[in-house]
Parts: sequence; structure tokens; C-alpha cells
Amino acid sequence: MSELRLDQTTKEWVIMAPPERGKRPQHMSNRQRVDELPERDDSCPFCPGNEDQTPSAVLQTPDPNDKILWSVRVVPNRFAALALGGNTISRGNGHFSRKMDGVGEHEVIIESPSHNTPMALMPYQQIERVLQAYQQRYNTLKKNRQFKFITIFKNHGWESGTSLAHPHSQLVATPIIATYYRRKFNVSVDYFYDTGKCLFCDMLVEEMEKKERVVVQTNDFVVLHPFASRVLYETWIIPRKHSASFGLFPKAKLNALAMVLKDCLLCLYRDLDNPAFNLMVDTTTTEDEEDPYCHWHIRIVPRLTTIAGFEMGSGIHINTSLPEDTAKIIRQAAHSLPEDEMLSFNQKG
Amino acid sequence: MSELRLDQTTKEWVIMAPPERGKRPQHMSNRQRVDELPERDDSCPFCPGNEDQTPSAVLQTPDPNDKILWSVRVVPNRFAALALGGNTISRGNGHFSRKMDGVGEHEVIIESPSHNTPMALMPYQQIERVLQAYQQRYNTLKKNRQFKFITIFKNHGWESGTSLAHPHSQLVATPIIATYYRRKFNVSVDYFYDTGKCLFCDMLVEEMEKKERVVVQTNDFVVLHPFASRVLYETWIIPRKHSASFGLFPKAKLNALAMVLKDCLLCLYRDLDNPAFNLMVDTTTTEDEEDPYCHWHIRIVPRLTTIAGFEMGSGIHINTSLPEDTAKIIRQAAHSLPEDEMLSFNQKG
Repeated sequence: MSELRLDQTTKEWVIMAPPERGKRPQHMSNRQRVDELPERDDSCPFCPGNEDQTPSAVLQTPDPNDKILWSVRVVPNRFAALALGGNTISRGNGHFSRKMDGVGEHEVIIESPSHNTPMALMPYQQIERVLQAYQQRYNTLKKNRQFKFITIFKNHGWESGTSLAHPHSQLVATPIIATYYRRKFNVSVDYFYDTGKCLFCDMLVEEMEKKERVVVQTNDFVVLHPFASRVLYETWIIPRKHSASFGLFPKAKLNALAMVLKDCLLCLYRDLDNPAFNLMVDTTTTEDEEDPYCHWHIRIVPRLTTIAGFEMGSGIHINTSLPEDTAKIIRQAAHSLPEDEMLSFNQKG
Repeated sequence: MSELRLDQTTKEWVIMAPPERGKRPQHMSNRQRVDELPERDDSCPFCPGNEDQTPSAVLQTPDPNDKILWSVRVVPNRFAALALGGNTISRGNGHFSRKMDGVGEHEVIIESPSHNTPMALMPYQQIERVLQAYQQRYNTLKKNRQFKFITIFKNHGWESGTSLAHPHSQLVATPIIATYYRRKFNVSVDYFYDTGKCLFCDMLVEEMEKKERVVVQTNDFVVLHPFASRVLYETWIIPRKHSASFGLFPKAKLNALAMVLKDCLLCLYRDLDNPAFNLMVDTTTTEDEEDPYCHWHIRIVPRLTTIAGFEMGSGIHINTSLPEDTAKIIRQAAHSLPEDEMLSFNQKG
């Protein structure tokens, strides 16, 4: 029979449905295969040579082998949801019409000059440069006191909501604390009040002891499929050492993060045939980066199913596989790959 | 410039992006046109003649013109996420592994024998029979004290997450109060404590006075595009008289609801070319159906965009049109339709 599981980090229940449910008749969307994309696309605003189709770069990392070329490029989003200038005090003409100017920044991190190399297939060093760009932009934008929260995320594949194929991430600074984060923050603060400890630190202890949902444990990170995974193959990458903010994570450790991130993405790529996914960096507010409650981490959410009326109406997700099973599949997939491709997974934690 | 708006029913902020954002280059999914579907599909388990492909009906409404045929049929979902039998006390082997048996019911409401008549094009009387089935099953299932909440919803079109084209709705009874509802409940209770009044009743007063987001106001309902609409053309149908539970809504008024629902769906169908959408009945818990805080209503959420990493990471939605503008478009669309097709919209409220 199926079971309900509680996500203790959000207090949300998830239905773990019987596996038969995953086999029900279902329309399959046409997945765009990466090998159908060219190495360069003349019409793509993110491809080299088309730099004039985006606003000027706010950060550009040079190619290590050629000073003229770039390897990572950060530009303001041409279709930004938020922009600089305006007032961040909310106002309303009645209780039910409270609003605020859309003050913020919305940037695009172009992950490499290559139009068709997904992050899963990039060299470790390239992913490290992408993560450095994430952190550098985060730390620059947090100085603006109008911004209370910075969301870093990546959409890969059409089902993930991306509008352009060229591998890119995004960063949005908002004048409000993100709703999702506020909810998690409240849960973490309650836990800290009850126990004097960080919720995620305690979860890591429990998960590392049980092992069944842990994909890999390196010197610096634990990768796991969470107990109440909302979707198949949901993957969390959690630093073992407590740290509330991604902005304060040691720069020297970003190479270790790049390695574990690439290995996770490569396993998903190989095992699920290049699935669409969203990647989110969950981090604390820009105002209290050293708090003892929050614990930054990365969430990878494959988009193998569609959020439908039940999820929208109830807030309850239905998952058709147990994380114990999917974590085992990924561990096995990792073992079948050459050791020189899985440097972080083959490191003993 | 863009603005942020607060949904006072959920305390979630929404970004109202500048309209240019809606024009950014975007992959368009192939919408399955209704006229491509046959009136009957031999391989469809919901089509007449294939009744043996579903479990036995728990409710069957006879065709008013032919006692042998059915007009609405409710069957247990063959791929149910939850099932009867089990224990609804949660248990856990450690704080981070709390779970409960997946006790519940999962039913499918087959809305008519026709494979290709979407709800937007059904006669009013047929929609009334569907709503009667919703309510009858709701009121039957609520008697099971293991169930704390019943979610009624409908997925239309592939982008909505449906797996079968034949028009159908679903109903899921859960042993837990739905997360989404609990959040709204807490907001409503706080509002009641602060003001002694129902949040939705007060919102209706404010919106009816302002008029700009109201699509139509009938004797029994207000249809509006909410102030902080999360997506384009999000539509709420709210009973004007306070009532916490859809289960207690007078059966004699279901024809009025059918009329306003059909007119809403027909406008969306005509104006947006048969969009995918989700429909949810937001109602109170099964244990306290007469509470003064909650106010049942229907939410219609067109699926014209995809939930992406920003929404998942931040919980903040980005909308590219103001509800004032979309409400106006729908009011105009309603005016252009023949009066005998828009019986509820042409009724003076």
C-alpha cells in the first residue's frame, strides 16, 4: 500500500503512491535531445559572436586558455521580472490591494560558450567557474540593502520552463523574503528553539546513520534523496559543515561542490536520458547570513511528471518511487561509470 | 515598471512583470485541439461500452432521456494514490522519517459519455449533474472519520498534467489536512481573530466596490481575477454568501454554479483557444464545515506558462498581465457572445 511521508524541513506531506501508478497510461512529451542541438546557433543570443544581443556583461570570466574569449558571462536579463529603482515600502488602497514597486535584479549566467554542452557534460573546472560566478554575483548584489533575498536557479529542458536551450542559470534579487524560504525558515527556527540545534545538521546525522537514502558522502557534502521526495529522483546536495549562506561558503571549496554537482547531474543524465530538471540554491536571507537555524543546500528536481490539479489544490505531491529505491539506482549507476568520470563519488567520505 | 502584489488569502507575493516579458522568445508546446478528438475512442476506458475497463461505479447518474445510458459516472481510480485500510496514526523511526499509511480514496468523475466535449461546451444541465456528483461523493466520503480533507479537482489538456483526454474530474480524500489548505486556513483564522470577520467576505466587499477585477457578479456568485493572480487569467468563483464547505452548499443552487462555471470556461475557451487549465474546489476540512473563517470557492488556473526554477526556489510566481486587464478582456469576450450562451453573465447581479 502507499504511504504518506512528512518532510520535516517544510512540514509538507507527500504521498508515496504504489508503483503501479507510475505505469498508468500517460502522454509522453517529446524530449529535446542534446545531440540535436548544434555546437553554435546563429540565432542564440547567448552564443559567442552574439554578445550585442544581450545587455553588457556585469561579470565575464576569461577563458583560461585564451584571454580574448570568455568562459562564463553574466548579463542582466533582457526580459527582467524586476529592475532597479523604486520604493520597497509596501502600500495599499485597502487591505486586499497591498503592493510594492518591482525593485530587484534579474541576471542570466551563461554557463559556457557552447550551445549544446549541458552542465552534466561540462568539465569540473567549468562548473567551478559557474559556481564562482553564482557566488560573486550573490555577494555583490547582497550589498544593496533594498534586496532581502537572492534566488539562484537553473532550468534545464523545455519541461523545466526554460525558454532558451543554451545552458544558463539565473539569479533574482527580490525586495521581499521569498515565500518558500520564509516557510522553511520558520520550521528551522522552531526546531532550533525546541532543540538548540540546526534541523539540517540533525537530519544529516540521521540520514548518514541510516544510509539508505544517501547517494554519496564526500569530505564536504552529503548527497541524498530526501525522505519525503516530492518527485522521482529529487536530489539534495548538503554541505556537511553548518553554514546558513551560500554567499559565505569558502571559495576554495567551490571546486569540491563543482565535482559533486557534476557527478550528480551526470548520473541523472545517463540514467534518465537527459531529463529536464530545475536546480535551486536554497540559502538564507541577505540580512542574517550567519544564523544558526538555516543550512544552505542545493535542490535538483527532475521534471518527469507535471504538477497537476491535485498538487495545486492540496499542496500534496504524489511520488511514484521511494527515495530509498532511486538512491540505490543512482549509487549503482555511479559504480558503472569510469572512476575518472566520477571523481567526487569515488572519493571516500 | 513591474510591481509586487500580496495575496492576502495566502500571504504570498507575486511579481507582476512588465508585459515585454510575456513576449520573450519561448518554445510553444503543441496544444491538442479538441476537434482532433473523436466523439468516441475505442481505447478510452471512460467511453461508453468500455465500462469493464474501470472498477465498478460508486455513483452513476442516468441519462435523463434514456434510462439505460449514464450521463455522469464516478469510479474508483484504477491507479489510486491512496486506498482504504490502514492506520492513520503517524509513526517514525527518528524525527526525519515520520510516515503514515496511505489511507484514503481516489475517485474519477467521468463528466459525460462524450469523449470530445470539454466542460466549456457542455450544456448547463450536464455541468450541474457533474457538480451534483462532486457534492454527493464529497458528502458520502466525509462520513469516514479517517478522512480529514477532500480535494476535488480537474485537469484539462496535457499541460495541466492530465493523462487521459476524456473529460473527467477527480476527488481525493486524505487522512491529513492538505498543506495548501492549512496555510490558507491559518491566514483566515488570523484575519478572523483580528477583525471578527471572514477574509473572503471582506475581500468581496472591496472587490465589488472597486469593480476592476470583477468579471461578473450574479445573484449568488462573484467571479474575479484575483489582485495577486499567480498566472494569466487565473479566475476565482466565490459564493457571495458565507459558507465554509462546498459540501453544505445548497443543492438547489448548484444549477446557478453550473451556469457561472460554464460561462467562465466558455470565455476562456473562446478567448484563449481552448487552454489547458486546472480547476480546484477550495473547501474547509471535513471536521468543521460550519466554521466562520473559511469560505469555499473555485479556482481556475490556466496553464499557459510553466512553473520553473524561480517559482520552485522562491515560491514567488511571475505573471505577465495584470488581472485588471485580463478581467476586462473576459468581460468584453462575454459581451461578444450570444446572450443565450451566457445566461449567468447576462443576469444582473
